[in-house]
Amino acid sequence: MTLYTLPERLSEFMETHIYPSEKPFQEALKSNRWQVPEVMEDLKQRAKEAGLWNLFLPPYNGNPGLTNREYAPLCATMGRSPMAPEVFNCSAPDTGNMEVLLYYGSPEQQERWLRPLQDGVIRSCFAMTEPDVASSDATNIRTAIQRDGHEYVITGRKWWSTGAGHPNCRVAIVMGVTNPEAPRHERQSLILVPMDTPGVRVERLLTAFGYDDAPSGHGEIIFDHVRVPDSAIIWGEGKGFAMAQGRLGPGRIHHAMRLIGAAERALDLMVERVLDRTAFGRPLADQGVIRQWIAQSRIDIEQARLLTLHAAEQMDRGGSKAARREIGMIKVVAPNMATRVIDRAIQAFGGAGVGPDVPLAALWASARTLRLADGPDEVHLDQLARDEIRAARERLASGHPPTP
Amino acid sequence: MTLYTLPERLSEFMETHIYPSEKPFQEALKSNRWQVPEVMEDLKQRAKEAGLWNLFLPPYNGNPGLTNREYAPLCATMGRSPMAPEVFNCSAPDTGNMEVLLYYGSPEQQERWLRPLQDGVIRSCFAMTEPDVASSDATNIRTAIQRDGHEYVITGRKWWSTGAGHPNCRVAIVMGVTNPEAPRHERQSLILVPMDTPGVRVERLLTAFGYDDAPSGHGEIIFDHVRVPDSAIIWGEGKGFAMAQGRLGPGRIHHAMRLIGAAERALDLMVERVLDRTAFGRPLADQGVIRQWIAQSRIDIEQARLLTLHAAEQMDRGGSKAARREIGMIKVVAPNMATRVIDRAIQAFGGAGVGPDVPLAALWASARTLRLADGPDEVHLDQLARDEIRAARERLASGHPPTP
Amino acid sequence: MTLYTLPERLSEFMETHIYPSEKPFQEALKSNRWQVPEVMEDLKQRAKEAGLWNLFLPPYNGNPGLTNREYAPLCATMGRSPMAPEVFNCSAPDTGNMEVLLYYGSPEQQERWLRPLQDGVIRSCFAMTEPDVASSDATNIRTAIQRDGHEYVITGRKWWSTGAGHPNCRVAIVMGVTNPEAPRHERQSLILVPMDTPGVRVERLLTAFGYDDAPSGHGEIIFDHVRVPDSAIIWGEGKGFAMAQGRLGPGRIHHAMRLIGAAERALDLMVERVLDRTAFGRPLADQGVIRQWIAQSRIDIEQARLLTLHAAEQMDRGGSKAARREIGMIKVVAPNMATRVIDRAIQAFGGAGVGPDVPLAALWASARTLRLADGPDEVHLDQLARDEIRAARERLASGHPPTP
Amino acid sequence: MTLYTLPERLSEFMETHIYPSEKPFQEALKSNRWQVPEVMEDLKQRAKEAGLWNLFLPPYNGNPGLTNREYAPLCATMGRSPMAPEVFNCSAPDTGNMEVLLYYGSPEQQERWLRPLQDGVIRSCFAMTEPDVASSDATNIRTAIQRDGHEYVITGRKWWSTGAGHPNCRVAIVMGVTNPEAPRHERQSLILVPMDTPGVRVERLLTAFGYDDAPSGHGEIIFDHVRVPDSAIIWGEGKGFAMAQGRLGPGRIHHAMRLIGAAERALDLMVERVLDRTAFGRPLADQGVIRQWIAQSRIDIEQARLLTLHAAEQMDRGGSKAARREIGMIKVVAPNMATRVIDRAIQAFGGAGVGPDVPLAALWASARTLRLADGPDEVHLDQLARDEIRAARERLASGHPPTP
Repeated sequence: MTLYTLPERLSEFMETHIYPSEKPFQEALKSNRWQVPEVMEDLKQRAKEAGLWNLFLPPYNGNPGLTNREYAPLCATMGRSPMAPEVFNCSAPDTGNMEVLLYYGSPEQQERWLRPLQDGVIRSCFAMTEPDVASSDATNIRTAIQRDGHEYVITGRKWWSTGAGHPNCRVAIVMGVTNPEAPRHERQSLILVPMDTPGVRVERLLTAFGYDDAPSGHGEIIFDHVRVPDSAIIWGEGKGFAMAQGRLGPGRIHHAMRLIGAAERALDLMVERVLDRTAFGRPLADQGVIRQWIAQSRIDIEQARLLTLHAAEQMDRGGSKAARREIGMIKVVAPNMATRVIDRAIQAFGGAGVGPDVPLAALWASARTLRLADGPDEVHLDQLARDEIRAARERLASGHPPTP
Repeated sequence: MTLYTLPERLSEFMETHIYPSEKPFQEALKSNRWQVPEVMEDLKQRAKEAGLWNLFLPPYNGNPGLTNREYAPLCATMGRSPMAPEVFNCSAPDTGNMEVLLYYGSPEQQERWLRPLQDGVIRSCFAMTEPDVASSDATNIRTAIQRDGHEYVITGRKWWSTGAGHPNCRVAIVMGVTNPEAPRHERQSLILVPMDTPGVRVERLLTAFGYDDAPSGHGEIIFDHVRVPDSAIIWGEGKGFAMAQGRLGPGRIHHAMRLIGAAERALDLMVERVLDRTAFGRPLADQGVIRQWIAQSRIDIEQARLLTLHAAEQMDRGGSKAARREIGMIKVVAPNMATRVIDRAIQAFGGAGVGPDVPLAALWASARTLRLADGPDEVHLDQLARDEIRAARERLASGHPPTP
Repeated sequence: MTLYTLPERLSEFMETHIYPSEKPFQEALKSNRWQVPEVMEDLKQRAKEAGLWNLFLPPYNGNPGLTNREYAPLCATMGRSPMAPEVFNCSAPDTGNMEVLLYYGSPEQQERWLRPLQDGVIRSCFAMTEPDVASSDATNIRTAIQRDGHEYVITGRKWWSTGAGHPNCRVAIVMGVTNPEAPRHERQSLILVPMDTPGVRVERLLTAFGYDDAPSGHGEIIFDHVRVPDSAIIWGEGKGFAMAQGRLGPGRIHHAMRLIGAAERALDLMVERVLDRTAFGRPLADQGVIRQWIAQSRIDIEQARLLTLHAAEQMDRGGSKAARREIGMIKVVAPNMATRVIDRAIQAFGGAGVGPDVPLAALWASARTLRLADGPDEVHLDQLARDEIRAARERLASGHPPTP
Repeated sequence: MTLYTLPERLSEFMETHIYPSEKPFQEALKSNRWQVPEVMEDLKQRAKEAGLWNLFLPPYNGNPGLTNREYAPLCATMGRSPMAPEVFNCSAPDTGNMEVLLYYGSPEQQERWLRPLQDGVIRSCFAMTEPDVASSDATNIRTAIQRDGHEYVITGRKWWSTGAGHPNCRVAIVMGVTNPEAPRHERQSLILVPMDTPGVRVERLLTAFGYDDAPSGHGEIIFDHVRVPDSAIIWGEGKGFAMAQGRLGPGRIHHAMRLIGAAERALDLMVERVLDRTAFGRPLADQGVIRQWIAQSRIDIEQARLLTLHAAEQMDRGGSKAARREIGMIKVVAPNMATRVIDRAIQAFGGAGVGPDVPLAALWASARTLRLADGPDEVHLDQLARDEIRAARERLASGHPPTP
C-alpha cells in the first residue's frame, strides 16, 4: 500500500470506503439526526490506519506535515463527498480551530483541546457570526467578553456556528469584544468555552436551503453570562481579529478545493448521466446545449483549480498576508464556479437533480451558502478593488506615466 | 367589504390572515408533517366566506368566472406565500385537475371528484413524470393502462407527483399508455385512480433541495396492477396527450404569476432589509452593487409580468393553441427570473437568507424546481426555436425576399 | 393605398425602397463621406408622397399626430435600417430638437428653425455632452452661456454631437450654464446657435467602434466666444435641465423601439442564415446551441417590446413624469437586449458577422453606444433603485407592516 | 542593458518606444492607409538592436529560442498595443507561417521565404477561410489545388486573410484541396503562392466592426487559375490539415496571451480613469459597481493567464497534441474574458470609451473577432465536450464504477 502516492491512496479510499457509505450514513441519521452513525467511527478508524488522518496539518514546529500546495488536491478529493472530510479529521471548523490552537494556544489549552481534536475524539465549533449585525464587518460584532477578576463573562448571541449540533462538540472558540475602546481591529478576542458551561445554550439548529447538515448542524447559540477562567483566552486580549484573519487563509483554500471536488463530482455525474439518456430521439450526450454545459464546466473548474493552487503556493511561500489577493479571489471564484457547474448538472438530471437520490442539490446548497460564509462575495470583491486602486495610485504617484 | 375590488380584498386577506399564519402553520407541522394544521382549515373557511374561493375557475358552460387576464394578478398575489394557494383552493395540481374534470369529465366523474375538489374537501395529485425516462418527451412514458374486460389495469412507477403526501389526497389522475401502436400522440390516456385502490403505494415523499413541502409533498408512487373500472378513463382512450397539453396552458400562466408574486416578495424583503442595515460604515441601501440588484430585479419582474399578462390575454382570446408561443416563453422566463431575483435577495440578507427565518431559500428552491417541472427550459426553448425556424422557412418559401 | 394600415404601408416602403437602397447609399458615401447621396433625397421625396413623413410628431396644439403608443411600432420598423429614420424625417437628434421647438420655441424660432426641420430641408444637432466631465450628471456641465447686453456669449467644448457632420446641419441646440449660482437644476439653459456663427468649429468627427456614421457623424465642437442674440435662448434662462429631461422621454422610447427593430432584423438574419448553412455534417438550424440563441433572442425581444409599449402608454396617459420609471427601465433594457441579440447573430454568421456585408456589426456598435448615450446604464439603474427604496421607506413610514 | 531580464527590457521598450508611437503611427496612416509609416521601420530597427526580435521562435534544430512558457508573458506584454507585435516581428500570421516553413519547408522554400520573413523584410498572409462555407469545418474547404504537369493550378476564393493588405505582403500560404477522394483529413494541402502571381487578386480589404486594421488589413482574395510550380507545395500533398492543426497550437497561445495583455491595458486604463473622475458627488473609484468591475476583471484576467501558462507548459512538455485540451480551453476563455474586461472599461469611460482617443473600442473589436477566427467558440466547446464524454465512456467501459 505504501507504494501508492498519497493522492492515489486517498482516491482509492474514497471509492472503497466513502462512496459506499454515503447512503448507509444518511439512512442511519433518519431515526436520530443528532447522533453519530457507527459507520462514521468505523471509517475514521480505517482512515487513521491508512495514514489518511490530519492531512491538513501544516509542517510546524518540527512536526512533519503537508504544504498547502500538497494538501490542496487531497482536499479536493475529500470535497467530493459531504461526509468525507470528517472521516479524515479534516472537516471545518475543526481544522481551523486546531490551527489556532497549534499556533497560538497555551500548552494547557493544547493539552486540553488540541490533542483530543487531533485524535478525533471530540469536535468543536467556531462562534463568530451574529444574527443582528452584518458580521462580514468584524467591527460590528457585539458579543461581550468582560473580565471579572480571574474570569471572563461572555454575553451574546451567535449563529451559523457549524458543528454546534454534533454530539461530540465539546468546545466553542468564541469571538467577542474585550475592549470596545481599543483601535478597531484590536477590540476582539478569541476565547475557549466548553459547551457544557452554564449559560451556553444551543437554542436551535438552522437549516440551509432545507438541509440541516446533521449530525454537525449549524447552531444558534446563546451565551448568557457565561463564566470561564481567564486562562481560556487565546494568545491574549485584542488578538481576535488577527487570529481570525490568519485562520481564514488556509481555511479558504480548503473551502475552495472542496468546492472544486464537489464540482468535479457534479461534472462526472452529469457526463455519465447523459451517456445513455434519450429525449426526442437523441441521446442527451449528442445534444449541443448539454455538450456546451459540459465543456464550460470543465473550463470553469480548471480555471478555479489553477487559481486555487496558485494561491496555495503563494501561501506556502509568504503566508496569509502574501497570498491575501489570491485568497480573496478564490473566496469569490470557487463557490460561484461550483454553483454554476452543479446547477448545470441538476438541469441535466431533470427531476432527479433536485431530489434526494443524487448529491447534487445538497452540494449546491452547500456551495451557495459559501458565497456568504466568511463574508459575502461583495466584501471580498471590494477588498480586491481597493488593492487595485491603491496600486494604481501608487504607480502614478511614483512617477510612472499614465496608461496611454 | 364588497366595496373593494377583488385584488384589494385579496391583498387585505393576505395581510390580515395569511402572513400572520405562516409561522404557526410551519410550527404545527413540526410535530407531524403529514397532517393538515388546523389553521389551514380555518383559513379556507374564511376565504370561502370572503368570496375568495376557486378564483382560478374560468367562465365555462354558463358559469361565471374570471378570465386568465383577470385572474393573473390575483394569482401573483397568492404566489407571495407558499401556503396561500391552498387557502383559496387555487393550488396546483388541484386547479389543473379540476379543469380537466370540468372540461372533459363525465357527469359521474364530476359528481364524484370535481365537486369535492371544488369544495376543498379532498385533494388530488397528477401522476405523469416517471423516474426512469426523460418525461419531458411524453412519448417516453412507460406506465401501462391495459384494458381487461370492463376494467383497466395500471402498472408503472411515477414520481414528483405533487400533493401525493397530503392526508386528504383521494385521487390521482394518471397518465399512461393505452395503445403503444397508435400514432405518437394518441398512445396516452388519463385515468382516475382513487388513492385507496389496492396496488397504489406512495413509496416515499421526495425532498427538493431539502424541503419536503409538507403537508402536500411530492410522491413517488407505485401502481402495481391497479384495477379500476373502465368508466375511470377521462374523455376516452388516446386523449391523454391532448388533455395534458391543454391542461398545461392555464397551469403555466398560474405558475408564472405565482413566481412573479414570489419575486415581488423577495424584492420587498431585500429593499426593506437594506434600509437600516449597515456594513463598513454605510447603510446597505447606499451601496451601489445592492442598488443595482434592486433596480435589475424590478426590471426583471416587470418584463416577466408584462409577458405573462400578454400570454394570458392571448389565451383568453384564442385558447392554449393560440397562446402556445407566449406560454412557452413564460415557462422559461418566470422561473429563471424568480431564481435570479430571489438569489439576489438571499445575498443581501447574508446568512439569514439561506436559513429558515425568512422565506427566501424555500421560495428559491421552489422556483428552481420549476425550471424542470413540466419540462426543462431547454425543451421549451427548442420548441420556440422550431417555431421561429419554421416561420422563416415559410416566409421565404412564399416568395418573401431574404432579409438583407 | 389608403386601404392599408400605416404599419403595413411603412413595411412595404421599407422592402420596396429602403433595403434596396442601403448598399447604393453606402457606395455613394465611399467617394465623399460628408455629402448626402442623391438616393437619400429621392427617398425622402417618396416618403413624403407616401404620407410617411414626420410620423413621430405627437398630437399637439390642435395638430393631428400619433400617440407614442401608435408611433412606437412604426419606429421599430424604421430601426431595422440605420438609414431609414432620416428618410422619414424621424431621425435623432432632429426629432427631439423639433419637439423642443414645437413645445417651447418662440414663433420666430419656430419659423426660422422648426419649419425647415419639419420639411427636411435642414438638419440640426444637440450639443450637450462634454469631453472633460461625466456629463451624465448634468450639474457637471461647464459650457458657459453669458449674457452680454442683448447677446449671449457661448464658450465651451462639446462632443458626441450627433448630426454635426451632416452637410445640411444648420443649427445646434446647445446646453450651457447661464447662472452658476442658481439651484442645481436651474443653472442650465438651451440656446440656438447657427452652425455658421463665427467661433463655432466642428473640430473633428468621432468614430464609434470604427464607424463614422457618415454623413451625419458625431462632432466634437468648439464654441469659442460665440455670440448670438438673446432671442436665441429657448423658453428662458434656467429652463435647460427641465427641457432636456422632457426631451428625453419620447427620445428614449424612440431609441428603444429602434433598437427593437434592429434586434428583429438581426434575429431574422440569424434564422435565415442557419436554414441552409451546414457544419460538421448538420445544418446549423438543427444545432441545439444555435436554436437556443434563436429562442432566447425571441424572448429577449418580446420582453423589451412589451416593456417599451407599456412605457409609451404610460407616457401617453401621464407624460414623461408619470412614465419616468418605465422610461428608465427601457433605457437600460433595450440596448442591452439589442447587443445580446445582435452578438448572437454575429456569432452565427462567423466571419461575415463582423464584416461589412451584413449590417450586424454596425447595428451592434450603435446599440452598444446607446448603453452610454443619454447617461450610462448605471445612472438609470441607480435612479430606479432610489425610487424603489423611497417607496419602501414611505410604505413603512405610513404604518404598513414590514414584509414578513 | 543586458543586466535586465527579458520581460523588463520588453516592458521598458514598450514604454519608451511603443506607446509614444501609437498616435504618430495612426496619424501617418490617415493620408494613406496602405503604406507602412516610417515610424514602424524605425521601431523594428530599434527592436532588433535591443535583442527583442523574433522572440516567438521556439528552440528548434539546434537553434536557441524561448519555450512557449518563457515567451508567453512577453507575448502578453506585446498584446498591450495593437502595433507592437509587428515591431518585434512577432505578429500573426507571420509567426505561424514562419513556424510552418521552419518545421516543414524545403531548404529552397526556407531560403526564399523564411529568411526574409525572419528578417522582417517581407510580410505574408495565410489564406484558409472561405466566404461561402462554414470554414471551421476544414472539410468544407472548396479551393482547388490541381496538379497539371509540374505545376499546380489554384482556384478559389478566400477571405479574412489577415496581412493581405500590407504593402510588403509577398506570399500567401494557401489551403486547398488536392485530392477530394482522400480520407477527410488528407484532402487538404498547403501551398506557397507569391502575391504577384497572375490570377491572384486582392479583391477588397474587409473591415471588422468598422476597423480596417491598416496597414495589414484583412483581404478577400481571388485565386483565378493561379499557376505555381509543384515545388511550392509544403511538405507534401494531403498534409495541409495536419500542418494547419499543428500551426494553431502555438498560435492560439500567442492569441490568448496577447488578449491577456489587451485586457491588462484595459484594466489599467479603467482603474486610472476612475481615480479622479467624479459623478453625482463621488469619485467613480468609490462607487461600488465600478469597484466590482475592477475586481471581477482582475479575477477574470488571472484565471485566463494561469490557464494559458498551463497550456504553454503542456505544449512545451508534449507538443500540440498533448496540450490539445488546454489549447481548446484558452481558445474560448481568452477572447471571452477580454471582451468582458474591455467592455467594462468602455462603460467606465463613458463616451470616450467607444471613440478614437483611447484604444478600448479597437481592442474590443479585435477580441470579439477572435471569438470567431480559427473557429468559433462553439466548435471548440463541442470538441472539449467530446473529449469529456469519451473519457467517461472509457472510464466506465474499463470497469470503473459509476459516480455515485
